[in-house]
Amino acid sequence: MSGAVAVREIGEFGLIGRLQAVLGETTGEGARIELGIGDDAAVWRPADGTSSVIATDTLIEGVHFGLDWMDWHSLGHKMLAVNLSDIGGMGATPVLATVTLALTGDERVADLETLYRGAGELAAPHGVAIAGGDIVRTRGPMMLSVTVIGEGEQLMRRAGARIGDRVVVSGTLGAAAAGFRLLTDTAAPRQATTAELLVAAQLRPNPRIALGQMLAREGVTAAMDVSDGVLGDLPKLVEASGVSARIDATRVPVVPALRALFPDEWQELALRGGEDYELLATVPANRVEQVIAAAAEIGATLTDIGEIVAQAPDGALVTVMDADGGWRSVAPGAWDHFG
Amino acid sequence: MSGAVAVREIGEFGLIGRLQAVLGETTGEGARIELGIGDDAAVWRPADGTSSVIATDTLIEGVHFGLDWMDWHSLGHKMLAVNLSDIGGMGATPVLATVTLALTGDERVADLETLYRGAGELAAPHGVAIAGGDIVRTRGPMMLSVTVIGEGEQLMRRAGARIGDRVVVSGTLGAAAAGFRLLTDTAAPRQATTAELLVAAQLRPNPRIALGQMLAREGVTAAMDVSDGVLGDLPKLVEASGVSARIDATRVPVVPALRALFPDEWQELALRGGEDYELLATVPANRVEQVIAAAAEIGATLTDIGEIVAQAPDGALVTVMDADGGWRSVAPGAWDHFG
Repeated sequence: MSGAVAVREIGEFGLIGRLQAVLGETTGEGARIELGIGDDAAVWRPADGTSSVIATDTLIEGVHFGLDWMDWHSLGHKMLAVNLSDIGGMGATPVLATVTLALTGDERVADLETLYRGAGELAAPHGVAIAGGDIVRTRGPMMLSVTVIGEGEQLMRRAGARIGDRVVVSGTLGAAAAGFRLLTDTAAPRQATTAELLVAAQLRPNPRIALGQMLAREGVTAAMDVSDGVLGDLPKLVEASGVSARIDATRVPVVPALRALFPDEWQELALRGGEDYELLATVPANRVEQVIAAAAEIGATLTDIGEIVAQAPDGALVTVMDADGGWRSVAPGAWDHFG
Repeated sequence: MSGAVAVREIGEFGLIGRLQAVLGETTGEGARIELGIGDDAAVWRPADGTSSVIATDTLIEGVHFGLDWMDWHSLGHKMLAVNLSDIGGMGATPVLATVTLALTGDERVADLETLYRGAGELAAPHGVAIAGGDIVRTRGPMMLSVTVIGEGEQLMRRAGARIGDRVVVSGTLGAAAAGFRLLTDTAAPRQATTAELLVAAQLRPNPRIALGQMLAREGVTAAMDVSDGVLGDLPKLVEASGVSARIDATRVPVVPALRALFPDEWQELALRGGEDYELLATVPANRVEQVIAAAAEIGATLTDIGEIVAQAPDGALVTVMDADGGWRSVAPGAWDHFG
């Protein structure tokens, strides 16, 4: 049965040919690409007057994903989405991606085709060409590494937030982390219809490219994408800007399903859960309403969750006001992937 | 003792800070880089009128290197060199690199600093900035993935070789593969002084950036770097060009140490050993002497090893004439990393 053919049976070049065929069905090579898969390097022509940006993210089986709870199509979507989200966080336009796969050779070719279909179907509407990469042998675990190149005239950075700015966040937070619990913890509460939204947020995050471009045009003072939770990422933004932030936990936007299914934990999931792939930005107070309205015009929501203040004497980067009116503070480096 | 501090003791951000300090000593951030390590993405400004190129290569412990036979400084040099070689194969100028490390957390920080010093000391003379990347946790094996961005006006490709062109190769072949044997096979022949050159070729390959740029200016018809041996790579070049090649094995350039230490195997090592990181190019016959002379002026050697001919009826991509005057042919896909 052809569906069960393993990578080692068709080899590296056989696999490259099959994956290229999948991309041909979905994205093509992209009009901007002068040379794609198959040479020493991929070649493209940067648009005049732009700066180029590069972002890279790696997913490792058993650390960042599990094939026992994640399907191959979602994995392909997500490996590209997490990188596009970084491009969105700069307000840039993505142009091309390269994909590196480290495989044992025992993987099924059909599964890798599904992986590429998932990536290609997200790449296509964003005009992104998947233009090369590398396939290497490993003894395991499987590793997927994606690099995305983007470009733009006005790019947003983490440094630039000013005292008095408002802090805004897009969409809702916490749903992806809750979805992860639902997918991996058999004791997690589950109710089919409400759970679906949370699971989808985990499996198929939607990178905020158009919103990032709009925020860059509006000239926000600083921005980044939210991948480690607002309490993981806002400290990085304010540290880079030499300021501090005070946020109101009760204003952090969440979907009703999160509160319904995780009544005791929803606020921690929203603040620290991670994998939201929303955008965080700082906006001068007198322009925040205009920026929120401009986001609404392109179908995006931005919520004002707090303000930028002077650096605190105790070094706290972010202070959070909880529902009971109490305050707690987040120190530098609170979030660490080796912690 | 501070030299024995493990990654998990100082965490991701601690490690990033330490590695950034090492790069500060060696490469700086590079004048072309608008934003380096520490934001969602690195930002640079492409030179006017150029195309950009991207190449990526991944090294996995136990597959591509071993810490029992390779030192950390050489590993840092090599992880960048293999990518710069791809940029050289296009005739482009490298601009920046990103580095992704997948670590268990048990690695010594001092070793990773040495790794970055090795990379930084190769990056600096080439004007390459190491401008970001990603550090992720794995259960092992350790993985190093480097992506290099370059740019150029006239870029070389694999497609373009024409019937009647001469095939030239830079430097010598086989030394790196012989060095690998000396480093890993205790039964391999060893004589201190002659072995050193072979070991150095394996541990610290020298990417041919200036030579690639010169070949691009000279308008060679096709080029690529040689990483899988001339019999692994020349078939890819002629296949992309829709032609075939005949090479004379006795003309393939080798160092005397290779013949001396591997009297029975030197020719196979030279033809198929791999990891040479030299350049392979095709040049119109009436211009080959001029191109060889131009290479000599910048201190590089090019050797004419054969010619481009029409595609063979039997599909053979490369035909090799051995020392005894016999011919053998190389079929498509003869080289496969899963084979």
